[in-house]
Amino acid sequence: MGRVLFDLAGADPDLRFSPFCWRTKMALKHKGLDFEARPWRFIEKERLTASGQGRVPTLVDNDTWVHDSWSIAEFLDRAYPESRPIFESERDKTAAAFQTKWAEFSLHLPIFRVCILDIHAVPDEANKKYFRESREERFGMTLEELASEPGKARAQLLSALQPMEQTLKAVPYLGGREPNYGDYAVFGSLMWPNAVMREPLLDQASSVGQWFERMLDLFDGYARGAKTARS
Amino acid sequence: MGRVLFDLAGADPDLRFSPFCWRTKMALKHKGLDFEARPWRFIEKERLTASGQGRVPTLVDNDTWVHDSWSIAEFLDRAYPESRPIFESERDKTAAAFQTKWAEFSLHLPIFRVCILDIHAVPDEANKKYFRESREERFGMTLEELASEPGKARAQLLSALQPMEQTLKAVPYLGGREPNYGDYAVFGSLMWPNAVMREPLLDQASSVGQWFERMLDLFDGYARGAKTARS
Repeated sequence: MGRVLFDLAGADPDLRFSPFCWRTKMALKHKGLDFEARPWRFIEKERLTASGQGRVPTLVDNDTWVHDSWSIAEFLDRAYPESRPIFESERDKTAAAFQTKWAEFSLHLPIFRVCILDIHAVPDEANKKYFRESREERFGMTLEELASEPGKARAQLLSALQPMEQTLKAVPYLGGREPNYGDYAVFGSLMWPNAVMREPLLDQASSVGQWFERMLDLFDGYARGAKTARS
Repeated sequence: MGRVLFDLAGADPDLRFSPFCWRTKMALKHKGLDFEARPWRFIEKERLTASGQGRVPTLVDNDTWVHDSWSIAEFLDRAYPESRPIFESERDKTAAAFQTKWAEFSLHLPIFRVCILDIHAVPDEANKKYFRESREERFGMTLEELASEPGKARAQLLSALQPMEQTLKAVPYLGGREPNYGDYAVFGSLMWPNAVMREPLLDQASSVGQWFERMLDLFDGYARGAKTARS
């Protein structure tokens, strides 16, 4: 069956907005591996039964099912040692792990607060219902309450991005001269609002904004070609 | 004159509490270079005149004056290419830069709020006055206002440390199997409260707490031997 990635999509099957799936797509591109990014929706748990869980990214590489973006990255280096490594060394992998966790713990909540109603607008009715119920239960408040201070959330996000903003004044990527998995992880986080928002989130004059443009250009503009709520 | 590091000290000359100076001491140890860490106080600006500024760490390496912990690390690799590199590659340096900025932007404010009155207790009267005036001007509030919610500040710090806590579940150091400058930078930040507080800040059962103990043991227990407000 080749290589299939189950990739979170909206009512429009071309709108792909999962930060975790974007990490995996960039990792597959980094290794130069072909794949089909197959649209999948929140409630289609039964399509993932063989993976033993119900979330994406889930990769089916011939007969092997792997889920979780970090586990998929490790799997790809293990399964394809002859192609460009995602993790060049234990040190590089650790730095990428730190940046991946930093994105999740420092960026995701303010991103969510900035664009949660835009995210909610993307799925069809049945998936909207799932998204609302599961997120309202997780956060203990309504989506509208989470979204009630978008200006404050944006300021928190820009503040949280400062370590990256400062670092990128000296080098083009978090990986230095070339992108590494840390870049892909944070890029995934920022492709999430990029996919769903009507207005761009980042200041294009900032170091992070310029880096985001460079990331869109990688792999022959792979991510730049992706459908957004603006396109 | 050999190699002298001007190192922030309290009224007790053995109490060294600058996060930035700790970074530099660990970097010098990493390279295996001998140095005298000479006590210096906030108001002794005239002792640093030759460096063109008034802050520490300032290193005098024979006739060369270098200040700023990051610039000193770069200088040491440039001046001593034959000894163990602080930055192994552009990628390693970039990862360390990110972690250094992360420590400054994400950890320093909550650390300050947790222990600012303990820091204030350390200098003599003239330096207490300088510390209070300069910090109250910088933050636009009194030290007591900054310190008014220590429990909340500690919770913010533990939350900010999560990316590191998660990363250190898999490896002993931020540098992977061996410490790198990212470890020294964050360690410096945490040696600051460690020097001045009456009670330990970190939970020793946490991954970060265990890492801190490993860092204290490096270089024959160099940092473990340092004077604290408890010793």
